[in-house]
Amino acid sequence: MGSISNTKTWQEKVDWARAQRDASLAKVEPKLDGIPGTGDLPLSSQDLPKAVLTPREIEITERYTVTELLGLLRERQITVEEVTRAFLRRAALAQAATNCLTALLWDEAIERARHLDSLPEPRGSLFGLPISTKEHHGMVGKNVTTSASFVAWIGKEHGSSLLYDTLWNEGCVFFARTTQPQTIMQLETESNAYGRTVNPYNRELTPGGSSGGESALIGMRGSILGVGGDIGGSIRCPAAHVGIYGFKATIKRLSTSGFRNIGSGKETISGCPGPMTVDREGLELFMKAALSAKPWRIDPSLTVKEWTPYKFTKAPKIAVQWWDGVVQPHPPMTRALREVAEACRKAGMEVVDWDCEGLDHKKGWDILSALYWPDGGKEALGLLEGAGEPILPLTKFILKEQPTVKDRTMHELWELCNERDMYRARYAQAWSKTGDDGNREVDVILCPPSFGAAMPHGQSRYWGYTSHWNLLDYPAAVFPVTKVNPDLDAKDLEYVPKNSQDKFVHDMYSPERFSNAPVSLQVVGRRQEDEKVLAALAEIERAMGRK
Amino acid sequence: MGSISNTKTWQEKVDWARAQRDASLAKVEPKLDGIPGTGDLPLSSQDLPKAVLTPREIEITERYTVTELLGLLRERQITVEEVTRAFLRRAALAQAATNCLTALLWDEAIERARHLDSLPEPRGSLFGLPISTKEHHGMVGKNVTTSASFVAWIGKEHGSSLLYDTLWNEGCVFFARTTQPQTIMQLETESNAYGRTVNPYNRELTPGGSSGGESALIGMRGSILGVGGDIGGSIRCPAAHVGIYGFKATIKRLSTSGFRNIGSGKETISGCPGPMTVDREGLELFMKAALSAKPWRIDPSLTVKEWTPYKFTKAPKIAVQWWDGVVQPHPPMTRALREVAEACRKAGMEVVDWDCEGLDHKKGWDILSALYWPDGGKEALGLLEGAGEPILPLTKFILKEQPTVKDRTMHELWELCNERDMYRARYAQAWSKTGDDGNREVDVILCPPSFGAAMPHGQSRYWGYTSHWNLLDYPAAVFPVTKVNPDLDAKDLEYVPKNSQDKFVHDMYSPERFSNAPVSLQVVGRRQEDEKVLAALAEIERAMGRK
Repeated sequence: MGSISNTKTWQEKVDWARAQRDASLAKVEPKLDGIPGTGDLPLSSQDLPKAVLTPREIEITERYTVTELLGLLRERQITVEEVTRAFLRRAALAQAATNCLTALLWDEAIERARHLDSLPEPRGSLFGLPISTKEHHGMVGKNVTTSASFVAWIGKEHGSSLLYDTLWNEGCVFFARTTQPQTIMQLETESNAYGRTVNPYNRELTPGGSSGGESALIGMRGSILGVGGDIGGSIRCPAAHVGIYGFKATIKRLSTSGFRNIGSGKETISGCPGPMTVDREGLELFMKAALSAKPWRIDPSLTVKEWTPYKFTKAPKIAVQWWDGVVQPHPPMTRALREVAEACRKAGMEVVDWDCEGLDHKKGWDILSALYWPDGGKEALGLLEGAGEPILPLTKFILKEQPTVKDRTMHELWELCNERDMYRARYAQAWSKTGDDGNREVDVILCPPSFGAAMPHGQSRYWGYTSHWNLLDYPAAVFPVTKVNPDLDAKDLEYVPKNSQDKFVHDMYSPERFSNAPVSLQVVGRRQEDEKVLAALAEIERAMGRK
Repeated sequence: MGSISNTKTWQEKVDWARAQRDASLAKVEPKLDGIPGTGDLPLSSQDLPKAVLTPREIEITERYTVTELLGLLRERQITVEEVTRAFLRRAALAQAATNCLTALLWDEAIERARHLDSLPEPRGSLFGLPISTKEHHGMVGKNVTTSASFVAWIGKEHGSSLLYDTLWNEGCVFFARTTQPQTIMQLETESNAYGRTVNPYNRELTPGGSSGGESALIGMRGSILGVGGDIGGSIRCPAAHVGIYGFKATIKRLSTSGFRNIGSGKETISGCPGPMTVDREGLELFMKAALSAKPWRIDPSLTVKEWTPYKFTKAPKIAVQWWDGVVQPHPPMTRALREVAEACRKAGMEVVDWDCEGLDHKKGWDILSALYWPDGGKEALGLLEGAGEPILPLTKFILKEQPTVKDRTMHELWELCNERDMYRARYAQAWSKTGDDGNREVDVILCPPSFGAAMPHGQSRYWGYTSHWNLLDYPAAVFPVTKVNPDLDAKDLEYVPKNSQDKFVHDMYSPERFSNAPVSLQVVGRRQEDEKVLAALAEIERAMGRK
């Protein structure tokens, strides 16, 4: 890679970053043919692969689950190189369609694939699997740079991270690095460095964020397993918006050691990496691989616990959160909840309501939005201003438009942490109470991962449906359920919004605007019950008639 | 209890606190006879009980292990009331001898004992066991006040705590509340409210601190199980100084919810409660009882894990830390290490050296002492100054004489937390490395819990042997080994101190000064390996010929 030491303005730095990206894409061989020009791209990118890729590439990238593909690789029915090339080409197509990449690792991935093919025996639980990765996590290899979406950091050298070393040791192939938004604190994906990433189902909608490069890429099957990160919904919201699976474990289960991020050393609230993938099994497979190396022996902040699959001995008890007491979900989301709850009930599960109006999710947001920026956002703003890069609207939303954000004194910080802990205790006690009086305690909450399907760009201004579980540090998985169907999902014209946020969300909805956009749901468990969440998801999907 | 709303000066508040304490002691019935006047108390208090208590009281309080006494209580071979009265009287004697109590709960304990005796069936794993408690943890019951050793807080109303509710539900009897030092941040036990607590083996030595009321009380068997707390050695140092057992688990294993303390909401470094007891089994029994109620269902900050006894399948591998690279332990401590290491070797364990000079424990202290006071001590100093109470020498030592203590900005705080995490990672990686190259990884470190036996008052100015494990959040247990013997523990007159702290410690030693003082050792495990530490302790004690 080149160097940018002599470039000066923020635009020059951006030009350099884009040139680096474009040079990495120029390696694609054979070149991609048949992609319409930027202005002519169709609303949905879902039909592009058939027009551009070979039937064999389509087969490799579409036909198999993660587990199946790993089986073929392990049995050497297919070479790692062939698989890698197929995903590299499809990822390049996804980039052309959605603007989801910061780099395509053409040379590195093929070199790695050839190395794996040359081994006498396949080695590692991820042997030969191409994995895509969020940019700020770093990368295995030489001459890696990471900007974490700050122009100020463009060209900054970066090593690998503990998590990626682990995945690498399990035999994967890193092949694509993906976009994230400015400050990595948006539920969409727009940065000055790379512009806007769009939804592969509808380019007028967002793929979500902050792991929106991943969701756009995986939503086009330009990758079938990627790594995102989540501190307010950044895995789950993008996964939901493209109809894939995503999992945010309890923090300190997976290491963030070696990631580049703002707020390093901040303890008020933490993010965590996690898998985004095309099938449910991929989530558990990732967690198992990531924990089998006992990463706490290197990063001692982690919970000492390998992945320990949970088995329900009787049908799980599900509590349905129809709304969060602040913002009413759009009709397709409510329909999805109704359909899945009904399927669970039919399968013999006990299904109850999760009435959280008394638990004051609004108060939760006031605490969380303050926890994000105990320095009043000074570090982030300093980086933006220092580089002269403009602050984007959704950065402004989270950093400057929340009345709770302020630069705190030490004692104000302690007070805020106490508020957080009291809120968490109150919520935990409410959950425990469901097990009183001879009742069975609720196993998981089934809830929306967002107030609706993917939003039009710039509209992701309500985080509550995902961020609330970050505040509580509850594990949560997202899974696809249905698509917006104007015939089924008419707007409720009688609805009277309860507050300004509710009005904003209500006004945004029209069935046509979201037509055919994926609609997903979320399964949430108690803190540290990571394995139970994925077990419950399996039960729920079986109840839905999936395998 | 009375009220102090009308008292004004700090001395008046202290008078009120002492009057409350004295009134609680005046309840003792029959009165204690045969205690020498304050000026005539013998150097060691160990022979006082025989002179003051009845043979039956001596039997009840001395003859049984915790487990044995619980067995008798459960089988109702003895009433809870008789046991409680015996410990109440012995605790009152311990107070007269060592000044270890803030309150004797005469009426409350007897009422509780009678209630337990009236139950048709014994209930709970701690049925009928008298338990003593550190003052700032609060207390079950009505009209409870807690000062946490701040005159400013004398008379402050206080409820119970989650931990104490749990122990209560397991059937224990709370009968005595014990002293702690000013700010609860000393390794001795002196406060303006209650004066100085002394060592029951030698009143010219400290019983340690901050849980020094507990250690003085249990060191006289005025209690056989008590609850202390530890953020720098506050369970282990006092336990070591009186030759009892103490255990500091990984933080977030036991709840501090409901304790009164300064630094509430501070996340840089945390303390944790833990058992102090006369026998090893008492440690595990306590942990089991405390965790069986799944306290994380109420306090969601806790690790979700019941007590899960560890079993070695082969003899543990022990690393002996002969010194910490900063301060050379006194000769009796080195002898204790030698004796126990030799016993372990003879029992077939692999015993290696823990060479930590390259790990820079001094740097660890610089980080930790800063982590204690990220506000520069402003809160504590404000409380002291606000009440007009004088700052005591060892408070000054930890709060004002550490060059690292300063009121930090938010970004300085983050930087400090990063330093801490890097230090922890480096240490963990060094431990992991012992398992490289086909070696077995070290299971536990055997090390001093202090540079020597109990110090003369005011000399506890080196915390490194305990506090280092708080910095790392490693679980650690203390157990009695031997006593200082001038015939065996001559001073090394040739020794040339390596630094000023080493000189301070070296100069302090003379065999006569410490003659017959208990000498204890410490077993330390990796973070979250709490159960393994207690299992290793059992193996080590068996190697020493104990059961």
